[in-house]
Amino acid sequence: MSNLVRLSLSIEKPLLDRLEKMVQGGGYTNRSEFVRDMIRDLLVRQEWKRGEEVVGTINLIYNHHVRQLSEKLTHTQHHHHKSIMATTHIHLDEELCAETIMVRGKASEIKELADDLRKQKGVLHANLSASSTGKLLK
Amino acid sequence: MSNLVRLSLSIEKPLLDRLEKMVQGGGYTNRSEFVRDMIRDLLVRQEWKRGEEVVGTINLIYNHHVRQLSEKLTHTQHHHHKSIMATTHIHLDEELCAETIMVRGKASEIKELADDLRKQKGVLHANLSASSTGKLLK
Amino acid sequence: MSNLVRLSLSIEKPLLDRLEKMVQGGGYTNRSEFVRDMIRDLLVRQEWKRGEEVVGTINLIYNHHVRQLSEKLTHTQHHHHKSIMATTHIHLDEELCAETIMVRGKASEIKELADDLRKQKGVLHANLSASSTGKLLK
Amino acid sequence: MSNLVRLSLSIEKPLLDRLEKMVQGGGYTNRSEFVRDMIRDLLVRQEWKRGEEVVGTINLIYNHHVRQLSEKLTHTQHHHHKSIMATTHIHLDEELCAETIMVRGKASEIKELADDLRKQKGVLHANLSASSTGKLLK
Repeated sequence: MSNLVRLSLSIEKPLLDRLEKMVQGGGYTNRSEFVRDMIRDLLVRQEWKRGEEVVGTINLIYNHHVRQLSEKLTHTQHHHHKSIMATTHIHLDEELCAETIMVRGKASEIKELADDLRKQKGVLHANLSASSTGKLLK
Repeated sequence: MSNLVRLSLSIEKPLLDRLEKMVQGGGYTNRSEFVRDMIRDLLVRQEWKRGEEVVGTINLIYNHHVRQLSEKLTHTQHHHHKSIMATTHIHLDEELCAETIMVRGKASEIKELADDLRKQKGVLHANLSASSTGKLLK
Repeated sequence: MSNLVRLSLSIEKPLLDRLEKMVQGGGYTNRSEFVRDMIRDLLVRQEWKRGEEVVGTINLIYNHHVRQLSEKLTHTQHHHHKSIMATTHIHLDEELCAETIMVRGKASEIKELADDLRKQKGVLHANLSASSTGKLLK
Repeated sequence: MSNLVRLSLSIEKPLLDRLEKMVQGGGYTNRSEFVRDMIRDLLVRQEWKRGEEVVGTINLIYNHHVRQLSEKLTHTQHHHHKSIMATTHIHLDEELCAETIMVRGKASEIKELADDLRKQKGVLHANLSASSTGKLLK
């Protein structure tokens, strides 16, 4: 863990009161952690904008009864195997699967992989969740 | 303007360095203003979630050649006149209009008005931009 | 207005039923208009991503009692006068103003203008709403 | 798989051309699948708004060197074990972990769980990705 230093800011009194209220309402133990979380959220959004190395999750809902879909999804994932850290599969019901693919790589490559999976017939929903390698968040 | 008080936080040194970089990169004159802006953004999002009195803008792009569309849009706006502060109209080209409606009212009513306008045939695009009465931001 | 042609699609029966429900729930008179609205929304998002000529609105909430703020905001707007179509000003209360700036230009320039306005001390909230010249939506 | 029926729509010729371009640009094999994907995306957003039973993913980036953090995260997850389908853990580097928690439950409970995890000291980033049980998407 990094050493903590002091950050001193000036802030309008009513705005500080509202900050306190959000800190307590969110169940945070202290406002420093709350403000640090706001800063980190902003940093993650900027990492994705700048196209840097990111971490993320691609979530798929699909019907495994659709002919050859499982093969195609596996094939696409292997083609991008360098960007994929792990895949977890859940059997939602008789027909439907949820698959979560944890990815790490350049933002543009991750988006391309998500698009390649989304367009397959039988994939009912696909989305990409943007996270971070954490290197800039420490 | 409200009186300024001091807010002192503890923060990891590398995170502080990245904050400084964002402050300078964003052209801010000081980091206090940058952090206050982050807090205010969060407050505005919460105002809309809680359904309080909000300020916002509804933006329309529409084709005024579509039969009776102008009449319908004016009629709908008058029906919600208590929520509308001002409407500005721009002639984009021979056919197309941009109209910006500045609104103030309960979030749910504002959303209903935006939906009523969006569904009209000839309205090519409609969106709602969420702002604030500013009362909680001072 | 452009001439209408037929678009014929195949769709799962339960999905069609849910589409119908959304069409009626949204107060649309017909499902063609509903689907066209979905397509146009996607086109607008792509215009902004590709950085093309766009139309949008920048909304500001600010405190006009802050020293020289009005002058600075006016100065910044004049510096970008080629991108600004119109500005509407509302007096929210004794201190606060809402200002809506209708803009047209390259997406990157519009974003830069919004950033230049946001960072001024006394601007309590600034956001950018993405719309379209409508050229691709007709 | 559900039986396919025909859906016939009227659409402006230029808008149809742009739809075709997006279908091809996105690598879709046919435009029916493209339009069905748009409809399903909208259905998923509505499921979350209405607070129904949803499926989603909570992604955490955290520093496992922070005292007792792993215990707290495990404890919180067990407290919500009925909403959690699976958790996958990746060792990002010496200090940092990525954890993806696949969840299923009422939207409000899922959001509460994500908030409970986010606020822990040492959690550098937490986000919630909204997906679906797929029941309404078939």
